[in-house]
Formats: sequence, C-alpha cells, structure tokens
Amino acid sequence: MSKKDYNQSVIIHKKLGGLLELTPKIKIKNKYDLSLAYTPGVAQVCKEIAAKKEKVYELTSKKSTIAIVSDGSAVLGIGNIGPEAALPVMEGKAILFKIFGNVNAVPLCINTQKSSEIISFVKNIAPTFAGINLEDISAPRCFEIEEKLKNIGIPVFHDDQHGTAIVVLAALINALKVAKKEFGDIKIVINGAGAAGISIAKILRCENYKSDRCLKVNDIIVCDSKGIISRNRKYNNIWKEKLSKITNKKNMDGTLEDAIKGADVFIGVSVGNVLNKSMIKSMNKKPIIFAMANPDPEIMPEKAYKFGAYIVGTGMSNYPNQINNLLVFPGIFKGALDAKISKITSDMELAAAHAIANFIKNPNRKRIIPSPLTRGVAEKVAEAIKKTAKL
Amino acid sequence: MSKKDYNQSVIIHKKLGGLLELTPKIKIKNKYDLSLAYTPGVAQVCKEIAAKKEKVYELTSKKSTIAIVSDGSAVLGIGNIGPEAALPVMEGKAILFKIFGNVNAVPLCINTQKSSEIISFVKNIAPTFAGINLEDISAPRCFEIEEKLKNIGIPVFHDDQHGTAIVVLAALINALKVAKKEFGDIKIVINGAGAAGISIAKILRCENYKSDRCLKVNDIIVCDSKGIISRNRKYNNIWKEKLSKITNKKNMDGTLEDAIKGADVFIGVSVGNVLNKSMIKSMNKKPIIFAMANPDPEIMPEKAYKFGAYIVGTGMSNYPNQINNLLVFPGIFKGALDAKISKITSDMELAAAHAIANFIKNPNRKRIIPSPLTRGVAEKVAEAIKKTAKL
Repeated sequence: MSKKDYNQSVIIHKKLGGLLELTPKIKIKNKYDLSLAYTPGVAQVCKEIAAKKEKVYELTSKKSTIAIVSDGSAVLGIGNIGPEAALPVMEGKAILFKIFGNVNAVPLCINTQKSSEIISFVKNIAPTFAGINLEDISAPRCFEIEEKLKNIGIPVFHDDQHGTAIVVLAALINALKVAKKEFGDIKIVINGAGAAGISIAKILRCENYKSDRCLKVNDIIVCDSKGIISRNRKYNNIWKEKLSKITNKKNMDGTLEDAIKGADVFIGVSVGNVLNKSMIKSMNKKPIIFAMANPDPEIMPEKAYKFGAYIVGTGMSNYPNQINNLLVFPGIFKGALDAKISKITSDMELAAAHAIANFIKNPNRKRIIPSPLTRGVAEKVAEAIKKTAKL
Repeated sequence: MSKKDYNQSVIIHKKLGGLLELTPKIKIKNKYDLSLAYTPGVAQVCKEIAAKKEKVYELTSKKSTIAIVSDGSAVLGIGNIGPEAALPVMEGKAILFKIFGNVNAVPLCINTQKSSEIISFVKNIAPTFAGINLEDISAPRCFEIEEKLKNIGIPVFHDDQHGTAIVVLAALINALKVAKKEFGDIKIVINGAGAAGISIAKILRCENYKSDRCLKVNDIIVCDSKGIISRNRKYNNIWKEKLSKITNKKNMDGTLEDAIKGADVFIGVSVGNVLNKSMIKSMNKKPIIFAMANPDPEIMPEKAYKFGAYIVGTGMSNYPNQINNLLVFPGIFKGALDAKISKITSDMELAAAHAIANFIKNPNRKRIIPSPLTRGVAEKVAEAIKKTAKL
C-alpha cells in the first residue's frame, strides 16, 4: 500500500468522524410512538424479561449484538498502543461484522491490561451481548483470559487465535489437495508462538479437538524469537511449555533455518523478512509457504515462487491466496447468534474451516481460498456452525 | 396506558428484535475500500492516535458516541430487576438520544451492583466513549458512583439525578412566573429522597451551584418513606444526612401531611397516591403540584385541580405539563460532545434549565414546559451547554 493510500485512510476516517453509528429501527413521530418505544410501554417489556430472563433474546437487540473487546495490547503489527489507538481497528472490524454477517458489533476498547480486570469486564457486560469477540490482546494473557471466560453463557471467541487457526486450516486443506499431500504425512514449521502460532499448532495437532473432522499433523515444529520450541528450554509461560509437549516430536533445538529443512509447509505469523532462498530450497518437494506476517511478509510471493515455492499464501490483498480472518469471524458469530449457542466448540471451528475450504470447488495453486470479500462465505460458515450446534 | 397498549409495546419490541442497530458509514465494495476502512490502511490511523491520543476524537466514532450504563437496580417504577430486564429501557433511551440529539448511545447493562465494580467498569470503558450516561442505578450508591467518576476526563451524568433536577427546575421557573411567586419566598415540599429527590433539593438549595443563575429556595422540606427528613433522625447514608442539613430550616419532624401545610409547591418523585384533598387544601394560595411518580402519580391531575391546584405537572404524556427528562438528556450530551468538555458543571445544568424554560415564550397554567417531543429543545439545551463551556 502506498503512502498516499495510507493517508487516504486517515482522510476518510476524519471525514466520516469514525465508521460507525447507531441507528434506531423505529421512528418516534408522536406521543403514542414514544409510549411504545420508551415509557410507559417499555415497562411491560422489562417485566416480561424480569419474569423470564431468556426473553431478553426475544425482546431486545441482544440477540443480534456482540462486543469487540480489546485492551490495545497487540494491535495489528504495531504492538501495544493502548485502547484509544486500537479503536479504529475495532470500528473497521465492526463494519465488516455488519456488512458480511449482519451482526451488530460494538467496539469496546478498555483502559486496563490486567487479565483479571479484563475477565471481570467481559463477565460484567455479558447481559447486554450475545457474544464477545476478543481482539488484539497480547499473548500469553489472551489464553488465560479466554480460558476463564469459557462458561459465561455466551460465546467468547478470540479471533487472533481461532479465526486465524480456522482460516489457515481452510487454506491448508486446499493447498494439500492441490499438492497431493496428506495431513498425516507432512512436516509443518510455524514461525511465531503468539496467539496465532499457538492456536494454529493446536488445531493441527488436534489438541482439544476431539472430532473425527480433525486433521492431525504428526510433525510440527514451532519457532519463537529465540528459535525452536523444544522440551529443553525453560519458558516463562505455561502455554509455550504446553506447546513444547505437543510439537517437535524429535525434540530438536536450533534456529528457524534448522527447523525448516525438509518441511512441506511453512506458516509465518510473526515478523517479516525471515525466509530466504536457501531456506526454501531446503524444504521438501512442492513447498507450501503461508507468509502472513504484517505489514511485511516473511518473504514476498514473487521471490518465494522464484525460489521454488509451489503454493504461496499471504496476508496481502494484492496477491492471490489471501488468508484473511474476514472469511471467518462474520460467519462464526452469525451462526453463533442465529443458533443462540453459549460457546463455540472445537467441532464448530473445524466445521467452519471445512466450509471455507469447500467454498472452492476446484482449488489450484493460485486459488486455495476464497477472496476475503466473497459474498456467501459467511453464510456457509454460519450454516456449518448451526449444523454442528444441532449435532 | 391501556393493557392493550402495553402489549403493543411488547409486540413491537419482538417484531423488531430490539430497537437498535449499528450501521457502517462506509461501503466496502472492493479490496481498495477494505484496505482503507480496515487493514492495512487503518494502521496509519492507529499510529496517528498512538502518537497523539487526542486524535481519537478526530479519527473515530468516539466523539459522537456515549455509553448508557445501568446495573438494573432501580428501573423505572419497577425496581431492582437486573441488567437483562433493564436493557429495553436503555435501548429506548438510546434511540431518543439519536433522534433528538444525534448522539450515538450504546446501552451497557452490567452484571454487578457493587459500587466499586461499577466505578472500575466506567473508568475502563472511558477510552471508547465521549460521555457516560448513568441510568437507573439505585440511591444512595448512585451518588458515590457519580462522585468518584467526576474526573475521568469525559462527562459522567446520572440522568435520574440531574436530568430530573434540571427539568423540574425548568418547569418551576415558568410555573412561578405564571403564579407570580418568587423562588426566594416560597416553601417547597419534595416527596422522595432517592436520586431524583436529593438532586432536586440540591439544585433548589444551590448546594454546589455557585452560579448567579442559581435560584435559591429558602424553605424546602423533603420527606422519605419514614416522614420528614430532619436533623433529629439517624440515617444509614451520608446523603440523607447532608440533605437534613441543607433543608428543613425549622428542623421539624412529622409526616408528609405535616410538611405540606402552607407549602407553595409539591414535588413528588416517589410513590403514587399520597396526596389527598385536605393536603392540597392545606397548601398556600395557588398551589403548584408536580405529581411525577411512576406509573401512578401522587394524585391524578383532574383531582388535583378539583381540590384547588393552580398548576399541575405530571410524568404522564396524556396530560399537559409533562415534566420529562427527554427534554434534557439529548441536548445535554449533544452540547457536551460538540464542545468536547470533560465534565458537566452545575453552571451548565442551570443554563440547560433556563434554556428549556425560555423555550416557552408565554407560559400559562397548562403550558409551563415544552412537550417532550418538541423539536428544537435539544438544540437550545446544547447551545446553552456550549455557551457555558466557553465562559
């Protein structure tokens, strides 16, 4: 994206004064309208909910409304910029929720980065919303926060973890189909052990995924900034420690360069510019590269192809195979809200990934996944969620 | 309101699935649109705010958006029905904010009634909003909560307190004009020592109102369910104790019946059906009755007139002189947001009351205050706020 385009984004945000507004579904033309929408008529609506709490789904906007909660600690590729500066991302996401999933999403950027306070915050707002999208909360806090919010009665979904894992799995299903490889036979290297990296490793290792739809990869190595995650290192968080137990079956140590030798798939979800010619050359036949770091990818697609990549996916919109969460989150919540479910299960995540992959009837090297703006994907994902909810 | 009309309110809420939705101000037709509204363009917007926090007002919806926060502890006349059952009131209020003040108001009904948690909650959401409307939080907690939120950088306004006090003052200005009485000469009895009653007493006693626009009443008596608030009783909250010090100059004890003897004005903000013929007869000449209890007033207007009332105001839409906060809150926040102020001062409250009163050029007994649906009142209130902010 050019500097001019970046400025254009600022100009548009300024001109519009933000991207969102709240709109009444009803007009107030006279006292009678007022008496129905507000007092005294609304008292009867309140009383019905007071008598039977579930009626809040029937009589208020709760059923179509979620909150996007962020503490601004891990925003895009920028980092810990705080709640105010995170707000434009949440507004952008909110309009995508509406446009693609017809979900009303309220951005809530909050002034605390303490896990316990974020947990209380989300518990406290649960009565108002039918779901919570956690966003841009840094690892490892995001894992603990989400874990403690599993049973609050409405689904809580950390998109940076699960949205990314689902869309990567969808892309991988079709990429392996095109490359004629099997999940059970391949070796994958993931660069990045944050929210996305850990979540991708978990979905590919079927960790907490009990369904027979799970596609288990036997050989996964994850690298963080210090190199390969092995059982020989000490970790300052239990999540990396757990990761060391479910990956790296040979328990090797070393660098990304060591890890990638013989790999079939590289998945990059950390920093850019970490792949070079010799590393791609060292991979197995028909190497698949998902270079998803933001704003700079691990390697530019044209270079990756030049060095022998068979299929390249990126996070960039001006290349084929854009692996973007936008394919996931509107449909996930549309389905969750339509089905009024209390949590998004691992089975639903797998069903969503398969639904996205199946959207491409005849995948090829330049088309393993729908473009993020494809209409109809969210509906398919929502259907998959609803169908799984009924099982 | 008939039972049929109450049911009609439920039917409408059900049919619409709540009254509110979030609407994007921008369309996403292609990848370029996406890149401006969301990634990667939005990164530049985030960075500008990260570099200069105040830009959040320029580049996001914050500047036009407030939260309506309630714990559902004192909803309408119904009581402590909890956050879910309170939601329809907040949604109704939110659409009125939009229709009358062009303010985007997000209902947030929360799952705690602990003052300390409500205070942290509001502090935590402050980055997202340009103002907070506290709503239907029971006394005396509402006083402490509001007090501790005075300096969070955005205005916090408890409408049940200040909205009511402002609109009552506005009605009283014109009622006294019609009755040819002066604020300094009259005796007022307030029935109810909750959020509204205490706040009305404070505005009429100029307690914390330093402006020369303050209209001080020398003789006020407030009654609660146990009778007259005097300095002889013990109170379980400091707010009633404070009230006992700024009212009841003769320090009398007794019942509402004792208090009302010789009073010029009765203001009812508690329970219905507490006034009778002999009580009105015992008042001073040209008695003014504001019978505002919900859903049943202290006395029905036709009866009050029959027993000698000179001017009657109510909370009911099917009678003249409806004294309704709707005249206040959209304009207060419209003004506060336009002027980007960090708090609503007592001077602004007084200015708002005068603006509402002045809206009626020639008040008479049946027209002391504009009808709640009058267009233009919110603009006048907003102008008054902005003008005062500039002083």
